[in-house]
Amino acid sequence: MDFRGAHIISVNQFARDDVERVFAVADTMEPYAHREHFTKALEGAILGNMFFEPSTRTRVSFGCAFNLLGGHVRETTDVKASSISKGESLYDTARVISGYSDVIVMRHPQVGSVAEFAKASRVPVINGGDGPNEHPSQALLDLYTIKKELASNDTKIDGMNIAMVGDLKHGRTVHSLSQLLQLYNDIHFTLISPKELKMPKDIVGKLGDAGHTVIETDDMESGLGDNNTVYLTRIQEERFTSKLEADIYRGRFRLNQAIYTRNCQPNTVIMHPLPRDSRKDANELDNDLNQHPNLAIFRQTDNGVLVRMALFSLILDVADKVEQTASKAGWYTGSRF
Amino acid sequence: MDFRGAHIISVNQFARDDVERVFAVADTMEPYAHREHFTKALEGAILGNMFFEPSTRTRVSFGCAFNLLGGHVRETTDVKASSISKGESLYDTARVISGYSDVIVMRHPQVGSVAEFAKASRVPVINGGDGPNEHPSQALLDLYTIKKELASNDTKIDGMNIAMVGDLKHGRTVHSLSQLLQLYNDIHFTLISPKELKMPKDIVGKLGDAGHTVIETDDMESGLGDNNTVYLTRIQEERFTSKLEADIYRGRFRLNQAIYTRNCQPNTVIMHPLPRDSRKDANELDNDLNQHPNLAIFRQTDNGVLVRMALFSLILDVADKVEQTASKAGWYTGSRF
Amino acid sequence: MDFRGAHIISVNQFARDDVERVFAVADTMEPYAHREHFTKALEGAILGNMFFEPSTRTRVSFGCAFNLLGGHVRETTDVKASSISKGESLYDTARVISGYSDVIVMRHPQVGSVAEFAKASRVPVINGGDGPNEHPSQALLDLYTIKKELASNDTKIDGMNIAMVGDLKHGRTVHSLSQLLQLYNDIHFTLISPKELKMPKDIVGKLGDAGHTVIETDDMESGLGDNNTVYLTRIQEERFTSKLEADIYRGRFRLNQAIYTRNCQPNTVIMHPLPRDSRKDANELDNDLNQHPNLAIFRQTDNGVLVRMALFSLILDVADKVEQTASKAGWYTGSRF
Repeated sequence: MDFRGAHIISVNQFARDDVERVFAVADTMEPYAHREHFTKALEGAILGNMFFEPSTRTRVSFGCAFNLLGGHVRETTDVKASSISKGESLYDTARVISGYSDVIVMRHPQVGSVAEFAKASRVPVINGGDGPNEHPSQALLDLYTIKKELASNDTKIDGMNIAMVGDLKHGRTVHSLSQLLQLYNDIHFTLISPKELKMPKDIVGKLGDAGHTVIETDDMESGLGDNNTVYLTRIQEERFTSKLEADIYRGRFRLNQAIYTRNCQPNTVIMHPLPRDSRKDANELDNDLNQHPNLAIFRQTDNGVLVRMALFSLILDVADKVEQTASKAGWYTGSRF
Repeated sequence: MDFRGAHIISVNQFARDDVERVFAVADTMEPYAHREHFTKALEGAILGNMFFEPSTRTRVSFGCAFNLLGGHVRETTDVKASSISKGESLYDTARVISGYSDVIVMRHPQVGSVAEFAKASRVPVINGGDGPNEHPSQALLDLYTIKKELASNDTKIDGMNIAMVGDLKHGRTVHSLSQLLQLYNDIHFTLISPKELKMPKDIVGKLGDAGHTVIETDDMESGLGDNNTVYLTRIQEERFTSKLEADIYRGRFRLNQAIYTRNCQPNTVIMHPLPRDSRKDANELDNDLNQHPNLAIFRQTDNGVLVRMALFSLILDVADKVEQTASKAGWYTGSRF
Repeated sequence: MDFRGAHIISVNQFARDDVERVFAVADTMEPYAHREHFTKALEGAILGNMFFEPSTRTRVSFGCAFNLLGGHVRETTDVKASSISKGESLYDTARVISGYSDVIVMRHPQVGSVAEFAKASRVPVINGGDGPNEHPSQALLDLYTIKKELASNDTKIDGMNIAMVGDLKHGRTVHSLSQLLQLYNDIHFTLISPKELKMPKDIVGKLGDAGHTVIETDDMESGLGDNNTVYLTRIQEERFTSKLEADIYRGRFRLNQAIYTRNCQPNTVIMHPLPRDSRKDANELDNDLNQHPNLAIFRQTDNGVLVRMALFSLILDVADKVEQTASKAGWYTGSRF
């Protein structure tokens, strides 16, 4: 696709070439995200970071990515404070807000809202999450993380084994990631979930059509073996008919040091879209794995900054100006990464 | 007036020369708002964007205007999060906040609050709306829009015909715009409103004293003819004694393609302060006019950025530094305007 | 201490040398805070201004300090909008957020939360207030103000007389200031409070151990005499068993022009951490002193910007780059200070 001026609404927009273009640009962003250098590629540009639904993590990640490229960020964090609550149409909001910014990131609770907004916008729009529907930069950062983690084990996405664990029926992240993985070859999926929370049939079907193999199981420990990557999600208690029923599944879909050691490969990468619920009741990914070298969950969020920098650079067509306008970072940055 | 260091609290501060000075500077801001160039005229300066009442549109517009001049923006969006809710006086808030910023934009629900705040502030204050009272940058952007729209038809504010439609009793924007129009000559006003919602008598009187002609009517279609500009406002149902009564007026004070074609001139400019209520019940300005070339409502909000850039430039005395510190915008900006 | 990369969690971290280092750097920040020059020492750096409890004043002060050093600011103002409310541990929040920023300021309602957060953070963290516990930059700005105010009277912190007035039991600011004053010599403390709201015994004990003299009294007027500085705090009605009981104390712990003239020295400096409650019922520091030259309360908040600029500069090790990257401020700045 032509990224220049494009809206990023759905993972369905991406061909494999497009994904790899994003990843190649993301790789070049490391010196800036790691504060070896800073760049002024977007000096003078303005991001409209429009969050009509709360999300500290995603909002700050996009904002930082834009700042790291040298641009300004203007934000909204509250739908009640907006004209939308006074009966304004998404069309009007888009026409107005797009007069203020060079690019807009929008999160909105309503499925399809960001696509509708983008149609009326005069500047490119990135979907930062439209309810349970799409959140394409999350899927891209997940896949980018898999690629980087596997590369350090001399493995590739093509031909890998991946387990997805938890509530695969409602989980937006595993749906979108599966869509992107269709673009690759010979992947072996193990989908571990309660029977009631299986991956939707159309997604499983598409994976098969794309030549991948899929195994579905509700037995976590047997499913964990032989995988390069385990992608955990939360068991969403509110979807169950009772807390008691949810409790049945919870124990079986929790990963901790003992279960990992007993079932996983020495190099199995552990992922989670975060936030993980660390309260005792939930605890789908135990803190006893926090120091484990294969725990990639914080590298995922770090990679989110790289991927978002790449998207901004491609959409605003400054990928080749980033280095030209770079300077050495002059402040103390420690050894954080 | 001497703009340097001045507070902008009320449209009453402005003589015709002052208005035209703002507009002349606003004209010079186009290359920056349109992202042909960016400027560092206010690099290092800080705007305190203090919104003690929600207003996404106005807040973001002021913030973008300041960013476009190269400055930083610090914001507050919630009165409950502020010391005002702990019994702090406006005097104290102003003394403190004015130690942080180079200029302050303040919105506050209470009539007169911004003027009181400005008295204690050590830096210039712009009124971003003090309840139902004043919102001078809105009146300036409305008038600036009229001037530009008429100019493209070889017409001028002096001698023009304008219709104001809707709730003229409570509408802050039509009051303030009328105040500014007193500074011009030979304007013909058609004030279209329900009898119960007529323009306040003192404003009508002042328009007459200034040599303008004023016709008041409650019949929309007959009033629309012969006007260069139609300025619509919302029918504010909550002011009526019953929904039923409001419904009587609603139908008559709605502009759509059919009514426009039947009654207006080919060049009649359509304006609205926004947000417009696009829910079926209200719909004072129909979406079937969205593609109409004379629909100026989104040019109004675009002009708001220019006018606000002009105000900041004049108050902080950098109007002649904007071009000196300008560079070409290096990112993709499409053809948005 | 080695400021480079350090967390600033508690006043207990500071030796006298450290305090004086902060103050020396704060002095060099005046030309920037006063807008004679602006600096790009932190150009490209990002502050994560994470306020999980509202505080307009402290949040904006830190944000402005970072902007004045040339850096970007990303913010959060709402705990409900954050992943913490979804069961995320402080450990996870810290790991994630510290991937976005170069330094973090955190306010959080829970005692000890910021220290816990800092342990997991990959970048330096400044405590912006952890509930009733610590708020070290406030104590530093208070002491910095005392130093500067006394210096203009040729007096020093060593050997000074200070009165602290009000609710000394619960007041976080007077506790922290007392901790810092232990580092100095021969101070005479007059602690004026209701018997029920005396300074905690361990703090009084430490002041004695450090060689200071302490007098405790519940008679305000007799206690006010002979002091170089009077530090007022709010009487916090909600701590009393009844409004009636609170009212007994309120009258005795209110400073106004008449009480000041009757009891204080001509040069006695008046301080208050702000916000002061100016409602009639409270009014612990009367507005009739607003024009008094010794009223230092707004110089306190101005000094807060200097002290916070100093902390950022020291932690990120750019104190010696501030002047190197400075330019003359080109906009109108009036004579605000």
